Amino acid sequence: MTPANLAHTTPIPVTTPRSVTILGATGSVGVSTVDLIKREPERYRVEAVSARRNATALAQIARDTHARLAVVADPEFYGMLKDALAGSGIEAAAGETALIEAAQRPTDWVMAAISGSIGLKPTLAAIERGATVALANKECLVCAGAFFMRRAAASGATVLPVDSEHNAVFQALGAGRREDVKRVILTASGGPFRTWTLDQIKAATPEQALRHPNWSMGPKITIDSATLMNKGLELIEAQHLFALRPDELDVLVHPQSVVHALVEFRDGSMIAQLGSPDMRIPIAHCLAWPQRIDGPAARLDLTKVRELSFEAPDLTRFPALALARQAMATGGAAPTVLNAADEVAVGEFIAGRMPFPAIATLVEKTLEAAASAACWRSPMGWMRPWPLTILREV
Amino acid sequence: MTPANLAHTTPIPVTTPRSVTILGATGSVGVSTVDLIKREPERYRVEAVSARRNATALAQIARDTHARLAVVADPEFYGMLKDALAGSGIEAAAGETALIEAAQRPTDWVMAAISGSIGLKPTLAAIERGATVALANKECLVCAGAFFMRRAAASGATVLPVDSEHNAVFQALGAGRREDVKRVILTASGGPFRTWTLDQIKAATPEQALRHPNWSMGPKITIDSATLMNKGLELIEAQHLFALRPDELDVLVHPQSVVHALVEFRDGSMIAQLGSPDMRIPIAHCLAWPQRIDGPAARLDLTKVRELSFEAPDLTRFPALALARQAMATGGAAPTVLNAADEVAVGEFIAGRMPFPAIATLVEKTLEAAASAACWRSPMGWMRPWPLTILREV
Repeated sequence: MTPANLAHTTPIPVTTPRSVTILGATGSVGVSTVDLIKREPERYRVEAVSARRNATALAQIARDTHARLAVVADPEFYGMLKDALAGSGIEAAAGETALIEAAQRPTDWVMAAISGSIGLKPTLAAIERGATVALANKECLVCAGAFFMRRAAASGATVLPVDSEHNAVFQALGAGRREDVKRVILTASGGPFRTWTLDQIKAATPEQALRHPNWSMGPKITIDSATLMNKGLELIEAQHLFALRPDELDVLVHPQSVVHALVEFRDGSMIAQLGSPDMRIPIAHCLAWPQRIDGPAARLDLTKVRELSFEAPDLTRFPALALARQAMATGGAAPTVLNAADEVAVGEFIAGRMPFPAIATLVEKTLEAAASAACWRSPMGWMRPWPLTILREV
Repeated sequence: MTPANLAHTTPIPVTTPRSVTILGATGSVGVSTVDLIKREPERYRVEAVSARRNATALAQIARDTHARLAVVADPEFYGMLKDALAGSGIEAAAGETALIEAAQRPTDWVMAAISGSIGLKPTLAAIERGATVALANKECLVCAGAFFMRRAAASGATVLPVDSEHNAVFQALGAGRREDVKRVILTASGGPFRTWTLDQIKAATPEQALRHPNWSMGPKITIDSATLMNKGLELIEAQHLFALRPDELDVLVHPQSVVHALVEFRDGSMIAQLGSPDMRIPIAHCLAWPQRIDGPAARLDLTKVRELSFEAPDLTRFPALALARQAMATGGAAPTVLNAADEVAVGEFIAGRMPFPAIATLVEKTLEAAASAACWRSPMGWMRPWPLTILREV
C-alpha cells in the first residue's frame, strides 16, 4: 500500500442501512446515539429502543427513529408506553424478559447503554448472538470482564468501547499491531480537587465534589472522578477490553481532557486520540465503525486550547486510584467488591453522612475484609452485606 | 475483531531476514538506520550501502553490517573505498551508474537517504522495481512529487515516509480509512525566532538562525526551520505522499516538538503521533513496517514534558510558509522554483551576503518572475539562472 494510492475524501456511499438496537435510549449516551442516527436516516434502521421507566421520552424516540419495538424495563410503565405509542404501529413491551428479547432481535449493531447491573443480562444477550456491541455499561467489564470478553470471543461478537478513554485506545490501536503495544495510558482530568491540598480535600463537600471541570455526567461518576476511582474502574475495563496486564496500564492526569488516551508502541512511538469533550465523537465512531460518519461535535481547535498539560496522579491525595489498581492486580471478585463498596460509599458521602476521604477508607476496609473472608471466588450473591457492615466502622 | 481477542506483547518471531539497501548510509538518517540494523542482526541482511565521498566511514559500515556491496557516488573516492574494504570480501563500486545498480538489486527494502537532487535517480530506480522504499530525500517529493508517486503506484512500490512529521501522519492514518480524513496537520517547532518581533527577525544573524531548539540537522534545513520554509516544503511533500488537496493541509506551531502530526477524521476524532525528537523512532517504524521493532530512543515521558503548547503560525513574521502554500496551490514547477530559489537564498544568507528577511523576498520574486515568464511547464534545465539573476535586485 502506498499512501497516495488511496482515494480522496468523498461522501460515504450508503449501502444497506445498518440495523440497530438502542438499550438505554433515554440516558445521555442513548440520547446522543439517537441524535446521530436521526442525522443519518438512510444509514441506520432502528429495530428496538429501551428505557428503564421514562415511557414518554422513549415513545418519542421510538416515533422519531421509526423503531419497530419499544421496551420499558419496569413493567409498571407499560400502560404509559402503550398509550404514548397509540396509533404509531410501534410494538410496546415491558419487563426484563422483553428487554432481553429486544437485545436478541437480529440487528447488526447494539448500543448497550443501560447503566448499572440491570444492563448485564440484555448486553450479554446481544453478545451471545454475535452482534457488534457498542459497550457503554461499566458493570459488564468491571464485575464480569473476563467472563464477558470470553463470551464475546466465543460468539464472534465485536465489542466497541463507547467510553471516551477506551474508544481512544481502540482508535489508537489501529496504528499498530496488538503485539507491538508496550503501554496504554488513560488520561484523567484530575477532577475538581486536582490542585487542592490534602486538608482541603478532607473538608470537601458533596456540592464541591459534584462540580466536574469538563464533562457533565451523573452524580456517582462525577464523585468517582473527584476521587479518581472512576479512572481506576476504567483501568479495570481497559484490562479486559484490550487483554492488557496491569503493568501495561497507566494513568496520566491531563486537566484539559483533550487527549483521551495514548498507546505506546515498542519502537517508542505514541499514538493518541484527541477530541472535544463531546460523547458524540466516540459514539459516532462506534456507530459507523469500521467506517466513519460526519459528526456534529465541535471541531477541536488546538490554537484555542493552546496548552495541554500532563502530570502523574498523586496517590496520597487520591488513594482510590491505588485501591483500584490493587483490585485489578488481585483480580477475581476484587473489582466487583471495589465497585460495590464505592457505590455505597459515594451514596453515603452525597447524603452528607460521611466525609470525602471516607470513600476510599470504606473501599479499602471492604477490600481487606473481603480478602480476609477468603471469599474472592464466591458467586456474586455474598457481596451486598459487606460495605454496609463496614460502614459503621468508618 | 474484538480488541481482547488479540495476543499479548511477545517477542517478535523472526522469520526470513528482510534484505535491505541503504542509500546515503553515512548521513544522519543513514547512520541511525545502521544503528537500528546492528541491534537486530537476525532480522535484517544488508545487501548494499552507499555514500557520496566518505569512503572510510562507508567501508566501516559495510564491514559492521556484513554488506555485500559498497558504492561511493564520487568516482574519485573509489580507490580509497577499495583499499578500506581490502580483505573483507565486500564488493566496491563507484559512480552514478553503480549507485543506480545498487538501488536496482532485488532487496525487500531500500532506505533512500541521499540528500539533494543526486538522490532522485537511485531512489527512482528502487521505486521502479516495486521495492518498499523508506523515503528521506526531500527533492523527490518537492520537485517531482506527482511524477514520483505515479511511478510508485504503477510499479506497486510502497513509499514509507521517514521524515518525523510525515511518518507521524502515516502512523495516524492507520486509525481510519483514507476517505474519512478531513485534515492533516503538521507541527512546526517554530524555530529559534518563534517569539521574536519582526524587527528582531530583520536583524537576525546566521549564527542565531542556526540554533534550532529541538533537532540537530544540517545548515540548510535549520535555516529553513527558522523561516518556516521547511514546514512549507513538508506540506508539499505531504500533498504528494498522501494525495491531499492543499486545503486539507495545515500547520500548527508546537514548540516542544513532541506531537509530530495530527490527522482529523470526519467524525471529529483527531489521531496524533507523539515521540521524543529522535529520528530513530520514525526510521525504526519504516524499517519494521508493518511490524514494529524495539527502539533504542528515549521513551516519551509526558510527566516530564509537562506542557504541550500550540499556536497558529504567524505568516507576517514568517512569510516563507505562505509562499510555500502558494507554490503548492499553483503546482507544476512552482514548488521546484520555490525550493531552488530558497536553496540559493539560504546560501547567500549563511554567507552573510543578505539579511534574513531577504530569503523570503528572493523566493517571492523568483516565483513571480518564473510565473510571468510562463515557463512553469518547461523542463528542469531552465531554472538555475533565475534565483541568481534576481539576487542582484534584492
